[in-house]
Amino acid sequence: MAGTNRSRGTEGAEQRGPAIILVEPQLGDNIGAAARAMLNCGLMDMRLVRPRDGWPNPRAEAMASGALVVLDQARVYQSTAEAVAELDLVLATTARERDVSRDVFTPRAAAERLHLHTAKGGKTGILFGPERAGLVNDDTILADAVINVPLNPGFSSLNLAQAVLLVGYEWYQAYAPQGAETTWGDAPPATVEQREYFFTRLEEEMDTAGFLFPPHLAPTIRRNIRAMFTRANLTDQEVRTMHGVLSALIKPRNRNADNDTSQ
Amino acid sequence: MAGTNRSRGTEGAEQRGPAIILVEPQLGDNIGAAARAMLNCGLMDMRLVRPRDGWPNPRAEAMASGALVVLDQARVYQSTAEAVAELDLVLATTARERDVSRDVFTPRAAAERLHLHTAKGGKTGILFGPERAGLVNDDTILADAVINVPLNPGFSSLNLAQAVLLVGYEWYQAYAPQGAETTWGDAPPATVEQREYFFTRLEEEMDTAGFLFPPHLAPTIRRNIRAMFTRANLTDQEVRTMHGVLSALIKPRNRNADNDTSQ
Repeated sequence: MAGTNRSRGTEGAEQRGPAIILVEPQLGDNIGAAARAMLNCGLMDMRLVRPRDGWPNPRAEAMASGALVVLDQARVYQSTAEAVAELDLVLATTARERDVSRDVFTPRAAAERLHLHTAKGGKTGILFGPERAGLVNDDTILADAVINVPLNPGFSSLNLAQAVLLVGYEWYQAYAPQGAETTWGDAPPATVEQREYFFTRLEEEMDTAGFLFPPHLAPTIRRNIRAMFTRANLTDQEVRTMHGVLSALIKPRNRNADNDTSQ
Repeated sequence: MAGTNRSRGTEGAEQRGPAIILVEPQLGDNIGAAARAMLNCGLMDMRLVRPRDGWPNPRAEAMASGALVVLDQARVYQSTAEAVAELDLVLATTARERDVSRDVFTPRAAAERLHLHTAKGGKTGILFGPERAGLVNDDTILADAVINVPLNPGFSSLNLAQAVLLVGYEWYQAYAPQGAETTWGDAPPATVEQREYFFTRLEEEMDTAGFLFPPHLAPTIRRNIRAMFTRANLTDQEVRTMHGVLSALIKPRNRNADNDTSQ
């Protein structure tokens, strides 16, 4: 996992992603873990405002293993205002402010806003506060809007890297196809003809075995068994396997028949 | 943050959430961090299959601070099959399997599937493998389908707690209202009448100051200024503040006018 190639992983990174601005981060481990979370989500632009233990930070490098490329490019600023100066859309992750009217986004809504802004040529950034205290009002007032993560209200505290991960994750999902798919493994799906041929053979054998009985229920039994196999989205290999299973299962019957004959 | 009240945070927990099954977790810290991630997402049912360092685990308790209630209720099993025995929908977080045809869900699609299943009275669970090795085939074959997290393909590795957090986060989001809202702070939004009165006063003062010039551009200037303030979704308090700002700004002019008069 160690960063023998310090630019590993950047090929999937999206250069137009938001800057991640860590304001007064305390622990190097958290900066390193945040760098990993950023690279997980294809984010490369890390900015540090007055990191407590100075910069560079060996603990951050140790924790970032595999994501050193993010730390290598990180820039350090003396004020939040400097860190966001050239951006034109800044969001702040912070608890709900009581005393001021603000636009509040979920991470998902924020991701949409960031993408729309970037598509118009804008430059975006997201502020994250120090580990315990969070952002101060002088920082959040630089932001256009606030991000709140909907979580269990009885236990909503996240560490710094987790907060970066969730916000970055939502940003990345806006690119990623969502939904369910069936992987093909090494084999393509069976054609309707292939599976119909198997069903027909199975039904003949069931009929021989007396399973399609009584006759008035046979159509229902056939339909249920077809539905079960069809729902499984069989591959052509799996249909071949089931033919083999079927042949093997009926063999004893044939063998017994042979035995009966030989007696 | 320490768990002085070990049941703190459970009031937001949803008892019908999926079981989180950690198969052969190695480090207590990771189990503790996973417990925190679970409680963040209102998940309470932790199951441990052959935890390497036995159970209970002091490192897990130290890391879980605030989420001890999850560890207290955790159950330990000797096999994955036992841990999922009474469930009827099991998803496995794992890398893509090459050799088998499988349904693969994103965390978002998985969350939808889990909720639909639970709504019908089903019991669900999600398998997470050991820290480095991941789930083995004998475990994943117990699962109905697989979850893959769409992340930077050049750097997609997550630690155990982060994987639990992302999957749990998506599960929780299915309940959480999504989008952008404007918080009201301590004050309600201004009524149209309140803001119109301010705009009218502002326009009169701008006119007096010669700003609405040349006259054929005045309608456009008026419209742009209204749009700017309206876009800000002013509260009634903010409208009062702007009246005060306006009064303060025109005072020098009035004072100068007074001075002029006095000269």
